[in-house]
Amino acid sequence: MSERSGLLNGAPYVAGLENARGLHYGDGIFRTMLFAGHQWHDWDRQIDKLAQDGRLLSLDIPDPGLLREEANSLVEGLEQSVLKILLWRRASGRGYAPVGREVDRLLLCYPAPSYPGECWSQGVVAFSSPVSLAPQPRLAGIKHLNRLEQVLASRDWPDGVQEALMFSPEAEPVCGTRTNVFWAHAGCLMTPRLDRCGVTGVMRQRVLDLASMLGIPVDVGRHPTTSLLQSDEVFLTNSLIGIWPLKALDSHRWPAPGKLTHSLMRTLAHPQLSGPH
Amino acid sequence: MSERSGLLNGAPYVAGLENARGLHYGDGIFRTMLFAGHQWHDWDRQIDKLAQDGRLLSLDIPDPGLLREEANSLVEGLEQSVLKILLWRRASGRGYAPVGREVDRLLLCYPAPSYPGECWSQGVVAFSSPVSLAPQPRLAGIKHLNRLEQVLASRDWPDGVQEALMFSPEAEPVCGTRTNVFWAHAGCLMTPRLDRCGVTGVMRQRVLDLASMLGIPVDVGRHPTTSLLQSDEVFLTNSLIGIWPLKALDSHRWPAPGKLTHSLMRTLAHPQLSGPH
Repeated sequence: MSERSGLLNGAPYVAGLENARGLHYGDGIFRTMLFAGHQWHDWDRQIDKLAQDGRLLSLDIPDPGLLREEANSLVEGLEQSVLKILLWRRASGRGYAPVGREVDRLLLCYPAPSYPGECWSQGVVAFSSPVSLAPQPRLAGIKHLNRLEQVLASRDWPDGVQEALMFSPEAEPVCGTRTNVFWAHAGCLMTPRLDRCGVTGVMRQRVLDLASMLGIPVDVGRHPTTSLLQSDEVFLTNSLIGIWPLKALDSHRWPAPGKLTHSLMRTLAHPQLSGPH
Repeated sequence: MSERSGLLNGAPYVAGLENARGLHYGDGIFRTMLFAGHQWHDWDRQIDKLAQDGRLLSLDIPDPGLLREEANSLVEGLEQSVLKILLWRRASGRGYAPVGREVDRLLLCYPAPSYPGECWSQGVVAFSSPVSLAPQPRLAGIKHLNRLEQVLASRDWPDGVQEALMFSPEAEPVCGTRTNVFWAHAGCLMTPRLDRCGVTGVMRQRVLDLASMLGIPVDVGRHPTTSLLQSDEVFLTNSLIGIWPLKALDSHRWPAPGKLTHSLMRTLAHPQLSGPH
């Protein structure tokens, strides 16, 4: 493709964008990973999940050793950082049909987010998003690059809110825009099964594994909203925050952190990112 | 962001990709437009649709005069070509929340596709895709950059097939991967209402307008698959092909082109792209 065949904001465009299926279709996957205390958190789990998502979309992921080497070069000399790995199918030409499994890879380093310590010690506030998640079993669980629903659900948050909780069209809780959600009923941990929509986060799996290790019964299923609202305690998870107790959803309030949440937080021993850095 | 903060395939990456919300989230829209016989086809309709989609996602589209100027510069000296316009929200930093309406624009020029003349004169073959379209009313109709469902539906086509027809979870026909679908019952034109999923293409609207002009009754609605299968004739539309009669879907066959299809094709007078160019 010659220089004259593309313009980015009116200037000769960056070679490769005509084939970047990540941009054209969102035909790719990503990971958001924490580097804190001079170390990668859950590196192996993250790469395993990347490989699993890759298999589901027929994408070959790069050699994990190479990814680690490149990631290390980006955080050299930093104490903490957030790494985003994006992989998208390499293509030749126009058209939806995927022609191979090879990917381009983009590793980006961002400053670690800075949250007040109260997010962990006193919990956060969420609200119920009016944006439902469309059920698409073929893409459920995958952290892919089609994230317009999350973009729509991240608009117009009320003041003081740190997350929007998203529901299925049948009004079952699914997940937050960037977190998974858990709640507890009489010592039993509940979380939505994510086989119709939602992302199966690495921290969600870690919490499930921790619960198993601690002998906490777990119910992963299609739970109605009433199950969540009538629960004893609620928390949110992702790889950057670890666990955030939820103290309020709309007009509902919970103790934060609850007993089970507190126990899981202590066992997890996740770094609390608090600024400034 | 410094050079060390990103790597694209291991090399210092292209500035801007850390903020390209089109790549990260598919937070953008696109158009595919035909330049043939030294002229743009449906330019005004395309720009109108771009503006309409932009409004739905809260994106400001660039000045149409500027787009036309840039598009013209790309096709200078060519007889025919395909232009793709991509617009995505300009961003600063990580996170789903959209922070403004400004867009980056990418215009790309591709060779016009080369289809055998039989696609128009004798019709094409489609098959029923096993990939359903997830109902998401907030995104329905919009030609946005979240196109993984179309990617999945473009895999593993049987030999001789030129399109995959996609259905709702309730098994109602919606559209092809890159076309809209129409059929006729006793002189009445039927096409799916696209308020739950699917893309409302520019050529679909042209056909609806043509039908109105020709006094052909039209039924835009939620039609069951039986309505399509028991129809007198079927055709597919998009901006590059105009109208393709459908001669077969799976084991069902139709006359191609049917009487009404033929009449619409004649009135449309769309250029038939046949190679080699």
